[in-house]
Amino acid sequence: MLGVCYYPEHWPEEWWADDARRMREVGITFVRIAEFAWSRIEPEPGRFDWAWLDRAIDTLGAAGLKVVMCTPTATPPKWLVDRHPDILPVNEYGGTRGFGSRRHTSFSSSTWLRESARITEEVARRYGAHDAVAGWQTDNEFGCHDTVLSYGREDVAAFRTWLRHRYQTPEALNQAWGNVFWSMEVNGFDEIIAPVGAVTETNPAARLDYWRFASDQVAAYNRMQVEVIRKHSPGRFVTHNFMGFFQEFDHWPLGEDLDIASWDSYPLGTLEKIACDDDERARWARTSHPDLAPFNHDLYRAVGRGRWWVMEQQPGPVNWAAWNPVPKPGMVRLWSWEALAHGAEVVSYFRWRQCPFAQEQMHAGLNRPDRKLSPGGLEATQVGQELAKLGALPASTRAPVALVFDYETSWITRIQPQGRDFRYTDLAFRWYEAIRRLGLDVDMVRPGASLAGYKAVVVPSLAHVSDAALQAFAATDAIILFGPRTGSKTRDLSIPDELPPGALQELLPLKVIQVASLRPNLTEPVEGPGLSGSIRRWREWLETDLPVQASFADGAPALVGDGNRFYLAGWPDPALLRGIMADLLGSVGLPVAELPEAVRLRRRGNLTFAFNYGEIDWAAPEKDAGRYLLGGPLVPPQGVACWRAE
Amino acid sequence: MLGVCYYPEHWPEEWWADDARRMREVGITFVRIAEFAWSRIEPEPGRFDWAWLDRAIDTLGAAGLKVVMCTPTATPPKWLVDRHPDILPVNEYGGTRGFGSRRHTSFSSSTWLRESARITEEVARRYGAHDAVAGWQTDNEFGCHDTVLSYGREDVAAFRTWLRHRYQTPEALNQAWGNVFWSMEVNGFDEIIAPVGAVTETNPAARLDYWRFASDQVAAYNRMQVEVIRKHSPGRFVTHNFMGFFQEFDHWPLGEDLDIASWDSYPLGTLEKIACDDDERARWARTSHPDLAPFNHDLYRAVGRGRWWVMEQQPGPVNWAAWNPVPKPGMVRLWSWEALAHGAEVVSYFRWRQCPFAQEQMHAGLNRPDRKLSPGGLEATQVGQELAKLGALPASTRAPVALVFDYETSWITRIQPQGRDFRYTDLAFRWYEAIRRLGLDVDMVRPGASLAGYKAVVVPSLAHVSDAALQAFAATDAIILFGPRTGSKTRDLSIPDELPPGALQELLPLKVIQVASLRPNLTEPVEGPGLSGSIRRWREWLETDLPVQASFADGAPALVGDGNRFYLAGWPDPALLRGIMADLLGSVGLPVAELPEAVRLRRRGNLTFAFNYGEIDWAAPEKDAGRYLLGGPLVPPQGVACWRAE
Amino acid sequence: MLGVCYYPEHWPEEWWADDARRMREVGITFVRIAEFAWSRIEPEPGRFDWAWLDRAIDTLGAAGLKVVMCTPTATPPKWLVDRHPDILPVNEYGGTRGFGSRRHTSFSSSTWLRESARITEEVARRYGAHDAVAGWQTDNEFGCHDTVLSYGREDVAAFRTWLRHRYQTPEALNQAWGNVFWSMEVNGFDEIIAPVGAVTETNPAARLDYWRFASDQVAAYNRMQVEVIRKHSPGRFVTHNFMGFFQEFDHWPLGEDLDIASWDSYPLGTLEKIACDDDERARWARTSHPDLAPFNHDLYRAVGRGRWWVMEQQPGPVNWAAWNPVPKPGMVRLWSWEALAHGAEVVSYFRWRQCPFAQEQMHAGLNRPDRKLSPGGLEATQVGQELAKLGALPASTRAPVALVFDYETSWITRIQPQGRDFRYTDLAFRWYEAIRRLGLDVDMVRPGASLAGYKAVVVPSLAHVSDAALQAFAATDAIILFGPRTGSKTRDLSIPDELPPGALQELLPLKVIQVASLRPNLTEPVEGPGLSGSIRRWREWLETDLPVQASFADGAPALVGDGNRFYLAGWPDPALLRGIMADLLGSVGLPVAELPEAVRLRRRGNLTFAFNYGEIDWAAPEKDAGRYLLGGPLVPPQGVACWRAE
Repeated sequence: MLGVCYYPEHWPEEWWADDARRMREVGITFVRIAEFAWSRIEPEPGRFDWAWLDRAIDTLGAAGLKVVMCTPTATPPKWLVDRHPDILPVNEYGGTRGFGSRRHTSFSSSTWLRESARITEEVARRYGAHDAVAGWQTDNEFGCHDTVLSYGREDVAAFRTWLRHRYQTPEALNQAWGNVFWSMEVNGFDEIIAPVGAVTETNPAARLDYWRFASDQVAAYNRMQVEVIRKHSPGRFVTHNFMGFFQEFDHWPLGEDLDIASWDSYPLGTLEKIACDDDERARWARTSHPDLAPFNHDLYRAVGRGRWWVMEQQPGPVNWAAWNPVPKPGMVRLWSWEALAHGAEVVSYFRWRQCPFAQEQMHAGLNRPDRKLSPGGLEATQVGQELAKLGALPASTRAPVALVFDYETSWITRIQPQGRDFRYTDLAFRWYEAIRRLGLDVDMVRPGASLAGYKAVVVPSLAHVSDAALQAFAATDAIILFGPRTGSKTRDLSIPDELPPGALQELLPLKVIQVASLRPNLTEPVEGPGLSGSIRRWREWLETDLPVQASFADGAPALVGDGNRFYLAGWPDPALLRGIMADLLGSVGLPVAELPEAVRLRRRGNLTFAFNYGEIDWAAPEKDAGRYLLGGPLVPPQGVACWRAE
Repeated sequence: MLGVCYYPEHWPEEWWADDARRMREVGITFVRIAEFAWSRIEPEPGRFDWAWLDRAIDTLGAAGLKVVMCTPTATPPKWLVDRHPDILPVNEYGGTRGFGSRRHTSFSSSTWLRESARITEEVARRYGAHDAVAGWQTDNEFGCHDTVLSYGREDVAAFRTWLRHRYQTPEALNQAWGNVFWSMEVNGFDEIIAPVGAVTETNPAARLDYWRFASDQVAAYNRMQVEVIRKHSPGRFVTHNFMGFFQEFDHWPLGEDLDIASWDSYPLGTLEKIACDDDERARWARTSHPDLAPFNHDLYRAVGRGRWWVMEQQPGPVNWAAWNPVPKPGMVRLWSWEALAHGAEVVSYFRWRQCPFAQEQMHAGLNRPDRKLSPGGLEATQVGQELAKLGALPASTRAPVALVFDYETSWITRIQPQGRDFRYTDLAFRWYEAIRRLGLDVDMVRPGASLAGYKAVVVPSLAHVSDAALQAFAATDAIILFGPRTGSKTRDLSIPDELPPGALQELLPLKVIQVASLRPNLTEPVEGPGLSGSIRRWREWLETDLPVQASFADGAPALVGDGNRFYLAGWPDPALLRGIMADLLGSVGLPVAELPEAVRLRRRGNLTFAFNYGEIDWAAPEKDAGRYLLGGPLVPPQGVACWRAE
Repeated sequence: MLGVCYYPEHWPEEWWADDARRMREVGITFVRIAEFAWSRIEPEPGRFDWAWLDRAIDTLGAAGLKVVMCTPTATPPKWLVDRHPDILPVNEYGGTRGFGSRRHTSFSSSTWLRESARITEEVARRYGAHDAVAGWQTDNEFGCHDTVLSYGREDVAAFRTWLRHRYQTPEALNQAWGNVFWSMEVNGFDEIIAPVGAVTETNPAARLDYWRFASDQVAAYNRMQVEVIRKHSPGRFVTHNFMGFFQEFDHWPLGEDLDIASWDSYPLGTLEKIACDDDERARWARTSHPDLAPFNHDLYRAVGRGRWWVMEQQPGPVNWAAWNPVPKPGMVRLWSWEALAHGAEVVSYFRWRQCPFAQEQMHAGLNRPDRKLSPGGLEATQVGQELAKLGALPASTRAPVALVFDYETSWITRIQPQGRDFRYTDLAFRWYEAIRRLGLDVDMVRPGASLAGYKAVVVPSLAHVSDAALQAFAATDAIILFGPRTGSKTRDLSIPDELPPGALQELLPLKVIQVASLRPNLTEPVEGPGLSGSIRRWREWLETDLPVQASFADGAPALVGDGNRFYLAGWPDPALLRGIMADLLGSVGLPVAELPEAVRLRRRGNLTFAFNYGEIDWAAPEKDAGRYLLGGPLVPPQGVACWRAE
């Protein structure tokens, strides 16, 4: 199904009914509203103006549209900030981050928590039982603009409380953090400060705990809103719209408090979130990289425990990247179908009409400012028609390959990269890319979750292997490939006594005795039977008796493992990585078949989808030449095909 | 005529008379003094020491030199700052910008305005009627070191007053700025803050108004000084020395308050102000780009309504660029003649003698610290002799081509670049370069000013087309070429209801329905009859029935227009741009003739000047082989020729 | 002899005796301890816990090890900071640099000076006469993390006092600094502020004095500790561990207060301290540049007036560079021997065992966290055995070539680079490299020190030539080569009245009349009899009658000089520099013989050492084929050879 983000407060009321009618013509079912409307809902302290919003919802409902209502907490109005400047976040230099845009609040401000609960209660009470309201979105893009971490007085106070709870005594904290180093020991929790503003690097264990604390604050804040909403709005779903490639807080626990996960998919704008060279950036400038949105689709499907939406789908050029190209004709349709192929229940476009004023005026919508459908709007209409023709899509099925994705590993490697370009996002993304280039579907899995039912599991890196994660690895008979730095840290961000990979040595008897980070112009060739390529960015030296599958030029082992557990001692280049993946995944009987770099496949139930991001036609393999529901066996550039398995 | 900047307070008094005598030997008429001398004029609050300055002026006057007296407000002394710290400017992070260099003042500080009026009055009263004083310079390089924008308490208070005057009601302001977006609405003007310090981007309309407000403050400050001076110094001219490529405030209104515009020409030091690749930077390192100073000459001729000086002419290497090369032999003479060719009344060198101490000790002068003429001083002497030989130069005449230059477009595209390298300065400069490469002279014109008398008008970009501008475009029968983003904004920095180019659609019926900014490694080829090249950085998609002169590879129109009005839907590369210019300017009978990249021509009255910035001789075309006043038909590297039209 | 840095407070007490025993097995004699142990020595204000440290020292002593005791002032504990926040340093933006890492103190804080004296007294009294204590280290790496310069209230107060002492009257200060420029004059010392935070560049003379003042504060602080230690610990040496390529304070006067200089040698980590291109960085990534550690060895030998140690020797990969590679096998041994060859009394490794927690957990030690010797530990053991076999090494002898090294020139060219890449470190390093590539040893010499006994003296640059320096140059009959900007400034950072090289004109009659800094893609070819190459970054124009040895393409002199004094008018590229060095050093009979880029020689007494940093064997010249004490005539990659002169 399709949806759209709509801002009735931005348009003359006399346009609303026509807008609603035209939404239906495009094939839209859901309309998200009101996430930035606080100043119109409560123009002055305690004075609420519901009338306009009542009419807006009624108008949408009357047209047969379903409303996704939001809490307006991403943009508290000026009068609230003026009355309560203590809600403002503080940056790491001690400066207050002020009013004038979005998210000018700290998750640890007691005033802000009280005000958030109040406005959530007001909105939920007003519309919780409204017929047209089908569900809710909490807030908007938690953490956007680097707002997870704040360093004000109340933030530190909350951190101290969190630490008291975790460690009980200062001695335990000093021990866990290794505070004896550099005389950093504290005699009480009140001596704790935020791990910023020091002369040089602060304790990485302290920084990790600050990140964990901040992540917990986000989850608690969201849970508070969810609980208020559920009280007043029975039977409606609650979601939150996450951001792509966003790892500032742990999404897994947040997902548990939601009915549905959703994310905001801007394939062109977020291309800069992964490290690409200039050629790649130019090649994918108008289509995005073929794995960029899918990586997040698969992640949020997991975060939502199977239920997920794209809440904001890029409909044309945006305004916020360094350069903002126009998507190639066909891409808005392609992106929409790709989300659906990955299991999205709804693809909701941002936004109905381009807003001619304020910060996002250069952001396209389904409609132009002059109320005509934009190129993207025309493509969305086509998707709506195609969806109507196809009818209900089958349920998503389990993928054959699991990729273990971990937020703490992202934090740990950012706190302590050891080499400037060791970026977990890139590593996980390139492993994902390698599997999908082989034509296979991927499920993202939370560390510690069951791995039952998978034929293969890949772990690009998992800095700390928890007991639960270890147990899940031990329990599966899938083939597993572990990447560099897995098991390299204890829970407290120390090196394990037994050396990395720590507890994982139970399953994989090896020790990492030395590591090197490598400048961009350094590579270490690797060779093995049927394998050739090199290691970049990161290399490890292993002490092990495990069979060696591939070696470095100096004879040291690069890939080791027995029948079904393998460890890769470095950051592979694409050729080496694809070779390893093809070997391992092929060895367990998965149908690996290398696709062109611009083509991807994805199954949803008994349907197979093909997507062509490139510049030349792609011919689907003969055996798939079954019943085509979309397109045909020759998939043109920016084309989509869908066929039903025989 | 020639001038020089002199600092008697830097030298032993016994040197002054000799300096004055030697200035005359160089051919100097005007001497600018005292713009940084406040601490010597008023060493303690209220205690004035005029004696030394009286003697200095008398000494200069006795030698037959004319003095350009300055107000010393660019450097208030320490005692003033200590008594009145409220005069200090505040940066966007809330930090005070302190004493220790220059321009440590806010244009909105009431104390500062009072103190400025006081010292201006004192100096003007003392010297306003002095025989040797021929004119005045207000302050020095307004806005230098990013001092137009300040964000302190008084700045914000003045901004609120300015907004009250402009909008009358908060509702009108909310409407104009689109504050409903992100709940940014205010309930009163006292809720307004400076548009900085927010979590992410602030409202672009608010930022534009802050820039307009700050620009108005500069103009009011200058006007205050001008009025005080005029009261005490009848019959003397008043000027201000502007900076090259400086767009932080609108120069057009300031120019109206002055008798003469002047600017400080540092061709090598400001080479970095335009985007060049490394090759260009190396090629022009010791000569500067041949259009760099001329672009500003033509601009300040317009700002001064025909009357203008170079107040500070680079005399050798400077100290303040990232790298400071020595000009090639001949360049100081060439730059001097080029200014004169563009109509300068006076070329005044900065400075008489290199100062061996403090911040600018590595800045060359006409004399070395050991009181001998520097290489630049020798060249200036040659210019002096040549000027004496030539006698009075004819008045400047109107150029055939007008380039509409707009400060607000610079602000708007910096506030909202949409693509990282969309820089108005570069765009305007490259359009100017293209015309001058074709051998033609250019006049700069303020938007809205009459375009009568021009054969061709080019508008590299004009973000907001005011009623006056529209009227001027409608009134001329010149051929006009409009560049990208023209008409793309309303006065309030919104997208026009009818889509860009807004009101200009009356003259050019087209709509811009989509825009893309392009990474540096992306180009879009363009072809048309006799035209070939590509679009970079910025592309637009047009909806129009106008005749298409050139198209993109996907068939979309790139250059459209009827007989005399054309619109270019992107940022052209040099080849495309020159092709278009040659076509259009040639079509109205202008004598286009492509010059070598290092040669330029310029007419002043019936004189034609040729300048050779390159490394090989240039032969002037036969038909110009008339009476040579300078040089001859073969212009050597760094050479100048001047001939009188037959 | 060998040493090691040990942190008993990081390990279970039951490990200590075994650690001590195993240190002896490696061949270690000295153990440095306690420089970061304040929080364990004095866990609460006034409560000392000596017991653990007593036992640690006793344990080490019992094993026959000698202890280098430290003052723990690099890491004052949290309780001290909480009680006395006035000890914290202040950055140039006015922000406090807080607790959480190291060196969070200002050298001008009176509280901090009192607390430092107190803890030094306590520790010195406790252990000054302990049998196992052989010597002392003051503090740790003065100035690390940019902590020489602080800008707080007490810093400025101390600066005012320092200025009063230097200048006596504000008039003298105004005169010296040239404060008349830009009206910067002060009427009293209380008007002085730190030279930061202004709108643009502050007075370079003020900045130089601030740097001198700060350097004096470091020296005074160190002297205070030295005096306390000497009072309580007679017969023990006192040292301080300096950092490589660190020029934030003047090391020469500090060295006078110490018995031994020592420095912390991290050849891979500090490779970024010299400007290299990407190829060089890749080539030397795992060995370091062959002159990088030696440059500092020779410098600290001079700072220590002949007596010096490496206090911290890199034992494997470190944690703090942008990328941290693993040294090639053999390099830890090579680096150790190279230090010894340059005259080190002791090479002490940092650290005994890799610490699994806190900031430096990724920094290798001689032992792995699991208590096994690391690869570096195995190499250190080999060095220990080789040292035992060789016995006492002969004393260092004077080198034939002196390089005059000056800290103020580093400050002056950073304060006023005039060209972005004029870095004194690079210049001095490349001159040193050129001499060592010719097979010669180098002594570093303080400007003004006697140059007697040298055959050649090189002065890469000496911005201000003091009377003492001038006298030393006049007194020697060595050949001298002066580099660019020598004599370019007076003591007060002005241009000399007689133009550069100022007073040096007595010895070298020439005037520098113009200088240019050159972008990286600009070069100026230079030719002379037997010389060919080019000038980069910096070129000067000379007025002189001295014989010209090489000229620029425009005919201007590039290298001038008479029989034994020469001046080079620019920054030479490697080819030109090596040619000049070979000519000059050869002309005085020195045995110049160009070595491969990866090979270096060094003599200690009658021993000659050869070091091979490269990838292919190097054959020592026949004539050296004497008695080999280490290796043999074919020196393999990463190999060391040592032979005794016949």
